[in-house]
Amino acid sequence: MMLTGTRVADAYPTRTAGEREPFDRTHPAVWGTEQDGPLDAATLASHESNGFSVVEQLLSPAEVQGYWQELTRLSNDQELAGDERVVTEKKSGEVRSVFEVHRLSELITELVHDSRVLDRARQILGDDVYVHQCRVNYMPGFEGAGFYWHSDFETWHAEDGMPVPRAVSCSIALTDNYPFNGGLMVMPGSHRVFVPCAGETPRNHYRDSLREQEIGVPSKHEITKLAAEYGIEQFTGQAGSALWFDSNVMHGSGNNITPYPRSNIFIVFNSVTNALVEPFAADEPRPNFIANRDFTPLSR
Amino acid sequence: MMLTGTRVADAYPTRTAGEREPFDRTHPAVWGTEQDGPLDAATLASHESNGFSVVEQLLSPAEVQGYWQELTRLSNDQELAGDERVVTEKKSGEVRSVFEVHRLSELITELVHDSRVLDRARQILGDDVYVHQCRVNYMPGFEGAGFYWHSDFETWHAEDGMPVPRAVSCSIALTDNYPFNGGLMVMPGSHRVFVPCAGETPRNHYRDSLREQEIGVPSKHEITKLAAEYGIEQFTGQAGSALWFDSNVMHGSGNNITPYPRSNIFIVFNSVTNALVEPFAADEPRPNFIANRDFTPLSR
Repeated sequence: MMLTGTRVADAYPTRTAGEREPFDRTHPAVWGTEQDGPLDAATLASHESNGFSVVEQLLSPAEVQGYWQELTRLSNDQELAGDERVVTEKKSGEVRSVFEVHRLSELITELVHDSRVLDRARQILGDDVYVHQCRVNYMPGFEGAGFYWHSDFETWHAEDGMPVPRAVSCSIALTDNYPFNGGLMVMPGSHRVFVPCAGETPRNHYRDSLREQEIGVPSKHEITKLAAEYGIEQFTGQAGSALWFDSNVMHGSGNNITPYPRSNIFIVFNSVTNALVEPFAADEPRPNFIANRDFTPLSR
Repeated sequence: MMLTGTRVADAYPTRTAGEREPFDRTHPAVWGTEQDGPLDAATLASHESNGFSVVEQLLSPAEVQGYWQELTRLSNDQELAGDERVVTEKKSGEVRSVFEVHRLSELITELVHDSRVLDRARQILGDDVYVHQCRVNYMPGFEGAGFYWHSDFETWHAEDGMPVPRAVSCSIALTDNYPFNGGLMVMPGSHRVFVPCAGETPRNHYRDSLREQEIGVPSKHEITKLAAEYGIEQFTGQAGSALWFDSNVMHGSGNNITPYPRSNIFIVFNSVTNALVEPFAADEPRPNFIANRDFTPLSR
């Protein structure tokens, strides 16, 4: 096999033939300083150490309501039905996620450029940023399926060609998160370790993995070790709060049998210096709506 | 169709052809008084009002360890493999429950007769009691499936012929319950309402319903109304704590993707005055290991 010209050295090998030992990540989680933006030094230090930080009430109740209506509109948009960007629940066929919403919705385009969001992304990554992925997630009540444990960066590296973990996700809750309606669980500090996953990436893996992921997840053995070392924390809180989390933090969520749906807007920012190359462990890159290749820096 | 001689009037019709409105239950949850046993008047009043009460550290850590070992022994007992009383996870095949453990294990026989357990059961039900059902549940980590919302009494009435809700369950945790490893959720106060469930009981329904229940569960519409009226509480706490809950309280549990298994001993006491008759809405009664028909009163 010939290496192409854009192939760069692989600092985070994964999708390996056999099990490989986890190793310490060499890149920081926080690249900027207090002087660069709204987050204070203590919050930045905590984000570096835990791999996440929370901003309560990033959106006002009125804004939450507006975005909720927008989500409902997108979920019911007949022009989008059958569109690849709309992912449905395996069991019920209900809408689970709508991708590329920053291009489908003016309201969400504004949010991505909003100083409350963009300035924090730029500060954490210490660089100009662009949107790697942007979606709304909807976990219906009664039969909402969760996501098994995974590191986003592992997938973005393997399947999208993201060189290093210099990306950060902002998840804004549009519904109240209780402990029992499928709230996100994270292992604080787990972002400092990269866990290679065994198994070759199947062709067009994203079509299944967006519903239920089987490749690109750590072994039970590794998850047990990580939980013992880092513990598990779960996010609960009111609609409008935002969770910023590092691209490599180990996270997952249980299912939701309560009548309370759980919904959020999910925006991934990547440093422009960390723009995508060829996938590190897949035959071809995933589509643009999942892994955007327009690296134009965002400005307010 | 001839009615048999043991058929009694049906105060709680269910498994009906169409949807029927929920109605207020006429029987109390607490039948005894403070004078009858270890629970004080405030706890009894709270149990009557909420449909449950919690006893922290009913078992000592050493006892928990002993019962955990007993559970492990029963799960691995080659003589029991393939036995009807051992129910396995639909997906993984791992042991999910072992029934009739008060006959399989001397240790659990002792527990059923232990004054900490038996005296409370007699007090709540205000009568002599016997064991309607006794099992150990094991929800493995990573892929433990939950139980959808249901009232136990609805099933015991329909499929086992339990005349009225004069039964109480004691669930003793053998593992620590976190908010995120599939802990039991209840709707406090929901035991005061009986929710008829639509749909005829399939023959040998128990063979599937012990893994995943589809008949004998309320409609989404009713669950939404109940959650709005009563709210949802989730049980968390240390191994050794006991939850006493009324046979008609609406409860369920989510799945468990964490590495932490969740395990408990589950004992159902029924008043001897409320002994089983013919099923109210099933062709034939379920087997004895699920719905015991030896109504001999227990004594210490």
